[in-house]
Amino acid sequence: LNAVVIAATGVFTPEPTISNEELAVAFNAFADAYNQEHAAAIQAGERLAKKPIDPQQVEAITGVKSRHVLDKTGVLDPARMRPSFPIRTEGALSITASMGLAACEEALARAKRKARDVDVVICAASSMERPYPAIAVEIQHALGIEGFAYDLNAAGASAVFGVQQAASLIRAGQANSVLVVSPEICSAHVDWRDRDSCCLFGDAASAVLVEAAAIAPPGSWAILGAVLKTRYSDAIRWDAGFLGGSSNLLAQDARKVQKELAPFVSDMVLGHLAELHLEAKQLRRLWLSQLSVSVTKAVAQGVLGREPNADECPLLLETYANISSAGAIAAFHKTSGDLGAGERGLICAFGAGYAASAIFLAKAA
Amino acid sequence: LNAVVIAATGVFTPEPTISNEELAVAFNAFADAYNQEHAAAIQAGERLAKKPIDPQQVEAITGVKSRHVLDKTGVLDPARMRPSFPIRTEGALSITASMGLAACEEALARAKRKARDVDVVICAASSMERPYPAIAVEIQHALGIEGFAYDLNAAGASAVFGVQQAASLIRAGQANSVLVVSPEICSAHVDWRDRDSCCLFGDAASAVLVEAAAIAPPGSWAILGAVLKTRYSDAIRWDAGFLGGSSNLLAQDARKVQKELAPFVSDMVLGHLAELHLEAKQLRRLWLSQLSVSVTKAVAQGVLGREPNADECPLLLETYANISSAGAIAAFHKTSGDLGAGERGLICAFGAGYAASAIFLAKAA
Repeated sequence: LNAVVIAATGVFTPEPTISNEELAVAFNAFADAYNQEHAAAIQAGERLAKKPIDPQQVEAITGVKSRHVLDKTGVLDPARMRPSFPIRTEGALSITASMGLAACEEALARAKRKARDVDVVICAASSMERPYPAIAVEIQHALGIEGFAYDLNAAGASAVFGVQQAASLIRAGQANSVLVVSPEICSAHVDWRDRDSCCLFGDAASAVLVEAAAIAPPGSWAILGAVLKTRYSDAIRWDAGFLGGSSNLLAQDARKVQKELAPFVSDMVLGHLAELHLEAKQLRRLWLSQLSVSVTKAVAQGVLGREPNADECPLLLETYANISSAGAIAAFHKTSGDLGAGERGLICAFGAGYAASAIFLAKAA
Repeated sequence: LNAVVIAATGVFTPEPTISNEELAVAFNAFADAYNQEHAAAIQAGERLAKKPIDPQQVEAITGVKSRHVLDKTGVLDPARMRPSFPIRTEGALSITASMGLAACEEALARAKRKARDVDVVICAASSMERPYPAIAVEIQHALGIEGFAYDLNAAGASAVFGVQQAASLIRAGQANSVLVVSPEICSAHVDWRDRDSCCLFGDAASAVLVEAAAIAPPGSWAILGAVLKTRYSDAIRWDAGFLGGSSNLLAQDARKVQKELAPFVSDMVLGHLAELHLEAKQLRRLWLSQLSVSVTKAVAQGVLGREPNADECPLLLETYANISSAGAIAAFHKTSGDLGAGERGLICAFGAGYAASAIFLAKAA
């Protein structure tokens, strides 16, 4: 079997940011207007008054100070409270394809790889802008890549599911170079009128260039092993779809997720570590899905058997919030440069499904 | 590398059917009402009158006599002209998961395989009922399968893209038994008020059990080779999505598809045949996507170098119409039983993207 590496990664971050303070101003204006409009019903106990957002409390509970979003104006308009996207004109790149393209271009540049040498593009994300043509085919076309492309969805674990499928193609000799790209517009999943969840999400895209070790550029990461697991749960659910689901916005039972997801993920990691004859203490760093401070840290704690420190388990939540499948790759992208040859780490992505995934890496000499 | 086989297949066909005659009655009632309502504007040349459907003409042009749909009542209600689906109650299987489940159960029964021996479920279809949890995870759960599951989309080529990814997992030693399931509710993509396209589509689901040759049941099909290709095109497009696309229903430029897609697919097949040192005349049967009589036959003609006969290129269009990614597998499922040991065939799926895919098979001894 061909050995496989992560050759390089890229991240696209939309420029606009929304601080907790800005979000509170918009949300509280919406809440005031709502409470005024429904004052009689609220007084009669027929409706609940909307409570205001306290920016400091948001930070204390979620660890999030700010998040990047594609469209700040729409989200912060108290009369709208959701992003507004231009209708794509004929021939223009779709929105998620343009985000993904930027992330791919960074990964290719870092690997000094020309796009035409790539064989496959997998767009692996927790939502797709349209059913067809596949977003991956649009990105493939924009990059000028021959070969094939398709879309894959395993929610917050999509990127690592994509990397593992890419690795299988390479191991089986069917490709040498595969881009796995994860554009995430979580700002369009979330109900910005829901005080409890609207603070938690942001937008970004990641890209991973997965390659045969035989053609790997310097500074790549050997994939020592990988494991994927899914177990059905309704606790994180988004029913938007062509059949008309019961809700058009994300719903989650945060308490259930906290209780069930973290042990599911850490048990999977520990099981595969044992198969690789590795111990958790041999992992220099854990790059985890940025789901929330509590779930992300609980996974690290489950793997390490103790509280992780910030160097072992880097968090991007402060400035990115939860960016779904792009989170674990973005954490790796931003905090892997200081590891030396032979040092090992773990990219571990998880989320709705439940879906859990981990790849064990060693920095090449 | 582990050798890979198609162990068995399954097809779920919804019971209700709509004949051309029934469709014409409903459509023409809608068209009459429309023309009456807009009589002034039509007379003033500001609107086009809706032309009626002639059932015999539909059959003559498309080859379709009837199609299966999940919800006949909603489609044939002239005031509605689209299917109506019940809101899924808590704990109930989603609609596409229940279709897929039925197809998987048939494939498992044919292979005499217990669900718990399956490692992976890939839901490979041209649209997903919701972003998350993945439909594949729900089917995995309903079957009681450990391991993992995810959703994949390459439009009409999805099923064969899924089979090829399954084959890579098996070749690379990461799975032994993979279900690739393709539930398609095309009746919810299509505009039943559009005379030109509404006759063309139907609903169904297919399943393929892909396995390592080492554990293959009797009567399986060796995968000799496979090839996937995508090339971006807007000619078949469905923009339904969470960002609010410009159209909520499928649009296609049939003339462009006819001109571009068939040679793209047949050239790919001929190229891979040469790599396998095979000639087209060594293929006993071609099981192709049931896109339309003209495109499907044009692909067969491109491969064979002459007009195909009905035995070489079986068509399901008469009773199924276009069932997207389920079409090529359904054709294989229904018309492969008479081939003998050593006989070769080709499953070739294609559609929007453009996406094209082919797997070359030989019936095991």
